[in-house]
Amino acid sequence: AMLLIEQEINPHVDQWEAEGIFPAHKIFKLLGNAGFLGVNKPVEYGGLGLDFSYSVAVAEELGNIRCGGIPMAIGVQSDMATPALARFGSDELKKEFLLPTIMGDKVACLGVSEVGAGSDVSSIKTKAVKKGDEYVISGGKMWTTNGTQADWMCLLANTSDGPPHRNKSLICLPMNLPGVKVARKITKLGMWSSDTAEVFFDDVRVPCRNLIGQEGMGFTYQMLQFQEERLWAAANVVTTMDNIIQETIQYTQQRKIFNQPVLYHQAVHFRLAELQTEVECLRSLLYNAIALYIKGNDVTKLASMAKLKAGRLARELSDSCLQYWGGMGFTSDVAVSRFYRDSRLISIGGGADEVMLGIICKYMDTLPKK
Amino acid sequence: AMLLIEQEINPHVDQWEAEGIFPAHKIFKLLGNAGFLGVNKPVEYGGLGLDFSYSVAVAEELGNIRCGGIPMAIGVQSDMATPALARFGSDELKKEFLLPTIMGDKVACLGVSEVGAGSDVSSIKTKAVKKGDEYVISGGKMWTTNGTQADWMCLLANTSDGPPHRNKSLICLPMNLPGVKVARKITKLGMWSSDTAEVFFDDVRVPCRNLIGQEGMGFTYQMLQFQEERLWAAANVVTTMDNIIQETIQYTQQRKIFNQPVLYHQAVHFRLAELQTEVECLRSLLYNAIALYIKGNDVTKLASMAKLKAGRLARELSDSCLQYWGGMGFTSDVAVSRFYRDSRLISIGGGADEVMLGIICKYMDTLPKK
Amino acid sequence: AMLLIEQEINPHVDQWEAEGIFPAHKIFKLLGNAGFLGVNKPVEYGGLGLDFSYSVAVAEELGNIRCGGIPMAIGVQSDMATPALARFGSDELKKEFLLPTIMGDKVACLGVSEVGAGSDVSSIKTKAVKKGDEYVISGGKMWTTNGTQADWMCLLANTSDGPPHRNKSLICLPMNLPGVKVARKITKLGMWSSDTAEVFFDDVRVPCRNLIGQEGMGFTYQMLQFQEERLWAAANVVTTMDNIIQETIQYTQQRKIFNQPVLYHQAVHFRLAELQTEVECLRSLLYNAIALYIKGNDVTKLASMAKLKAGRLARELSDSCLQYWGGMGFTSDVAVSRFYRDSRLISIGGGADEVMLGIICKYMDTLPKK
Amino acid sequence: AMLLIEQEINPHVDQWEAEGIFPAHKIFKLLGNAGFLGVNKPVEYGGLGLDFSYSVAVAEELGNIRCGGIPMAIGVQSDMATPALARFGSDELKKEFLLPTIMGDKVACLGVSEVGAGSDVSSIKTKAVKKGDEYVISGGKMWTTNGTQADWMCLLANTSDGPPHRNKSLICLPMNLPGVKVARKITKLGMWSSDTAEVFFDDVRVPCRNLIGQEGMGFTYQMLQFQEERLWAAANVVTTMDNIIQETIQYTQQRKIFNQPVLYHQAVHFRLAELQTEVECLRSLLYNAIALYIKGNDVTKLASMAKLKAGRLARELSDSCLQYWGGMGFTSDVAVSRFYRDSRLISIGGGADEVMLGIICKYMDTLPKK
Repeated sequence: AMLLIEQEINPHVDQWEAEGIFPAHKIFKLLGNAGFLGVNKPVEYGGLGLDFSYSVAVAEELGNIRCGGIPMAIGVQSDMATPALARFGSDELKKEFLLPTIMGDKVACLGVSEVGAGSDVSSIKTKAVKKGDEYVISGGKMWTTNGTQADWMCLLANTSDGPPHRNKSLICLPMNLPGVKVARKITKLGMWSSDTAEVFFDDVRVPCRNLIGQEGMGFTYQMLQFQEERLWAAANVVTTMDNIIQETIQYTQQRKIFNQPVLYHQAVHFRLAELQTEVECLRSLLYNAIALYIKGNDVTKLASMAKLKAGRLARELSDSCLQYWGGMGFTSDVAVSRFYRDSRLISIGGGADEVMLGIICKYMDTLPKK
Repeated sequence: AMLLIEQEINPHVDQWEAEGIFPAHKIFKLLGNAGFLGVNKPVEYGGLGLDFSYSVAVAEELGNIRCGGIPMAIGVQSDMATPALARFGSDELKKEFLLPTIMGDKVACLGVSEVGAGSDVSSIKTKAVKKGDEYVISGGKMWTTNGTQADWMCLLANTSDGPPHRNKSLICLPMNLPGVKVARKITKLGMWSSDTAEVFFDDVRVPCRNLIGQEGMGFTYQMLQFQEERLWAAANVVTTMDNIIQETIQYTQQRKIFNQPVLYHQAVHFRLAELQTEVECLRSLLYNAIALYIKGNDVTKLASMAKLKAGRLARELSDSCLQYWGGMGFTSDVAVSRFYRDSRLISIGGGADEVMLGIICKYMDTLPKK
Repeated sequence: AMLLIEQEINPHVDQWEAEGIFPAHKIFKLLGNAGFLGVNKPVEYGGLGLDFSYSVAVAEELGNIRCGGIPMAIGVQSDMATPALARFGSDELKKEFLLPTIMGDKVACLGVSEVGAGSDVSSIKTKAVKKGDEYVISGGKMWTTNGTQADWMCLLANTSDGPPHRNKSLICLPMNLPGVKVARKITKLGMWSSDTAEVFFDDVRVPCRNLIGQEGMGFTYQMLQFQEERLWAAANVVTTMDNIIQETIQYTQQRKIFNQPVLYHQAVHFRLAELQTEVECLRSLLYNAIALYIKGNDVTKLASMAKLKAGRLARELSDSCLQYWGGMGFTSDVAVSRFYRDSRLISIGGGADEVMLGIICKYMDTLPKK
Repeated sequence: AMLLIEQEINPHVDQWEAEGIFPAHKIFKLLGNAGFLGVNKPVEYGGLGLDFSYSVAVAEELGNIRCGGIPMAIGVQSDMATPALARFGSDELKKEFLLPTIMGDKVACLGVSEVGAGSDVSSIKTKAVKKGDEYVISGGKMWTTNGTQADWMCLLANTSDGPPHRNKSLICLPMNLPGVKVARKITKLGMWSSDTAEVFFDDVRVPCRNLIGQEGMGFTYQMLQFQEERLWAAANVVTTMDNIIQETIQYTQQRKIFNQPVLYHQAVHFRLAELQTEVECLRSLLYNAIALYIKGNDVTKLASMAKLKAGRLARELSDSCLQYWGGMGFTSDVAVSRFYRDSRLISIGGGADEVMLGIICKYMDTLPKK
């Protein structure tokens, strides 16, 4: 991937950041050709058939892209919108949606969050009502990464009125269907090169065969899907954190203050050593979780811990490193200020820190009994 | 000021933020008419002749402007570029530069930081060489707030080759002189509505009578000037921090997650109580310092502590509050994300946190003896 | 007080710490003679009739005692067990209990906490049932400072079955009454020189005229009493924190590592500057609260903030300073390790940090509505 | 080990803590019989011949002892005073000192720290001057764990006047030799059951054959020895941290405040989840380091990171958990207050946090170039 990143992506990042979007179809086709969009997906649908640790290796590699938005968009395509489809989808559905997504011919997005339901997935309102052999979908989605360019959405919708953890289903929804309205591109604090949309559904009709797996299992599938999303997110940011520390070392080594390099002030090199220590902690935790995951264990607790730690450390690290760049750190010209803006999302998206804490508590059996 | 802010400034902030500049001459004239640009300046030059605590009250009031860039620009005009001129300048110089600045007819900027000398003021390279009754100025300044719109600059330059704390002078430099080149507007992480310039001087000739006070006393004057700058900065941000907490309370009270308002989760309201406690600490420290300052004490240590605490608390508070806004916090539409970007500057500008620590150490007598 | 502390207290502190008790009657008599036990109490009962800011000045002075236990014991006598009595007690009751307490002839203790009710004062179980002109008291108290030496206790007990905030009363209880059993001296992490007792009441009979103020107002009185307790505690520890920083500076200046004084390592002197900054914040907050309090304002919010900040800062400061003493910091011979043990109590006693946060939230109006 | 700990150690811990010493010979003999003192030592000297990961497993198991002092004393015996001897000592020396130490017949101590040289090992002053076939030793050691009971000391001394990293040697020193004076038992903040001594050497004569490995290599050997010490220390405390969290969960679940278990307050269970997350980070880092170490890699950087993280997390965790025990947490009766006292040593002993940071910086190549 290195070469592809250096030649096809990084040279254009500044422009795409300024434009608020990147050419997903073009970039995903390049990545698809190289095999990077389906590393752990079945060979029969274009994947490489490797285990998830190889997906993680790619996620780490993508951390070398000089912004957070593009890796995130790729991650949605490869490891956030597709795991449930790959695991539970019918052969027909996988041929129609998974294969072209892995090949980079179709852009995918994930439709979970809504205006009134971000981290609290169970409270979504979008409905898919079965009429004959179609679902009729009404409602809307928010914070949809890739939303303005996507060809299809892995949609979570309520397919019945039952209890909130059992009334949801995942459905493959082509974005060009009548009634799908991509309402607006949301301007964000960071992640500028990634387009984020609000999407409305006005009686959108989709065939029932587009259902992934069983009806009513959507919440469960999404929770499984979240495991890979969270591990992916942690892996991706670890590389960027390494890079930011290294660039900060290089900058502060040549930049002088009070007659010596900024780096040589003990407060600076000690702080960088503390941050690197925490990065190694996160990396070790991640590898530990991955090793257990590929052996078939439920790593929800460890994955939630990794996501929590990744989000918090990214905030701490970007803030601390930016400081040592002085005035330069406050310009838009340097990687550290972009990382400061971009990485703030990690603690919010894919389940906020507080949701991760709730999950960890659940596994520690410390939540209030009702 | 409230009405002026509500009617003339806040309705336009979003636009000015988007444009990367605000109409300084227009706004400063309004503020000048209202008396807000020279609260503690002598009445004979248009000021109100009050003590510095009233300037601080204005700084607090300006914290209600819905961005950080415009208050900062105003603060440069009223309390950062002018204290030394008001205190040490000749009557003639004050008539030419101070009076119109207080009246809002001229926009001022402060020329201290350079490419190779930000927080380390003593190492600036810009020279002012006396030739006859003129100084010939060469060099350049960086991070100059108001730099693209300013009519004059309070310039710090080396006027001799002596020891670095005794070879500098402050000079009133009209920005329309031949040889002054405003090189570029710097794009920044935050503070978008405030224009920040790089300025070059190519043998700029300025009359020697534009010297503020005594030659060679510039470093000392600037250190005095920094006291008011730092107190001003702390006062200004305290108000914004109050506002951000209040807006976060209001938002999280109406926003529900897991069947109750976000605010009612103990982790949220406890955290806001911790932050408000720290804000009260800062406010008390600031008032304590001001009370001593207006009685004539050297409050360098306390002012440095207030600046340090203000910068660090603003980072912590903006980061923590943003979290509770969830996805909304990551959009550009809300005050909290703007504050997250803008307030990051406080720990860098006007002497970085590490410079504040060094000053505090100097007063604690804990620095290494050479 | 300085001389008294230096001559009569500090020379014996090590011994009293080792013995787990100090001679309260002897020391309180000395303090009483000097007027330090009733600084803000009425002259007619032996007090100095000054405002509370003078009590705070004494609290600060007592911070020079080289342990936390003795100042705390004095504080119980002067500002924790007596404010309600002084304010609401009958003349007769004040002559019997307040006057000798202020004179140092009687040792007082405060009976609020119980085994099942520490920070949650409203849930105490001790009962005082009126029978004729006596209260018959049964139950017990826990964590009673001065408990093994006290002559009387300011007791909080339930005098009816009404709602928990209106069924309590404060009663002056002589400790030598039949049925009062001082059960055991509790061994503690720190505060060794202060005796802490568990006390049981087995049908103890006390005249109804020993009631302080009105029946049923005990919870309210105690909340008022807590204000002074919390301000006192914050004031007292501020001095000790100043001293610990100064002693750490002195020690690390003469102690070398890697060929230079420990102090001269930037990580050390910067950290001490950060801590001193926080101490100044706390001191300013405290003075701000006191100034409002002596003008008659309700400062419950600010007093709770000061107590919260004092407890947390003491933990942080003692932990950080101890580190720079290296192996010496881990011995029992130095003030910093005693402060590390002693000061841990501040966040627990007199209402735990979490209770302070709850009070602050109440004043911020952020608690869940029922 | 579990049974041995439960039956032979834990029932006596309170008594040994009170006495300030534990019967090392008796306990070490039991451990020696069970094979726990030489897990990774050669079979020919009584060891089990396993790799270091098994020593780490024992270190973790020993974390179940209900104090920090005894595990530390065992660790000195098994993994701190003996690694260099096992690796570089002559067969004769290993028979005389290593074998009985592994068998539990002799108690070992490590003589590195001195009054003027704790973390800065290179600046020790103790001399071993070669006279004939003997070394004549003068000087002294400080903070010597097991010092009052030890049969021999692994002594670091200057054997020449060369550069400080090449003039030191490790020597097996019988503690019953004439001139060895165990001066005093040091009273400490925590680790009470472990005796800590100051030791003086007054022309102590020891045969030259007691030299471990090569003369002049002592500093290098000790640095190697420190790797295992630091990994051991981190492993040991991880178990205790798990236990403290679990005990805090249990206590706060049955302890009520404001009508519900303390645990059910979100601030409490969220905080415990954060702490458990950090413990998992440390554990993962440790396992990562061990896996690399047993494959023969230099893990100085990772071992230093693990030690640093272990020390800091132990302080944070013990402080946070203690808070939730309320008044009980401040008594001496509970594990959490003992851990609060004991674990404070981790950041000081075996190289202070600041030394760890320096080592990490060295490996990151961020230290000032001279």
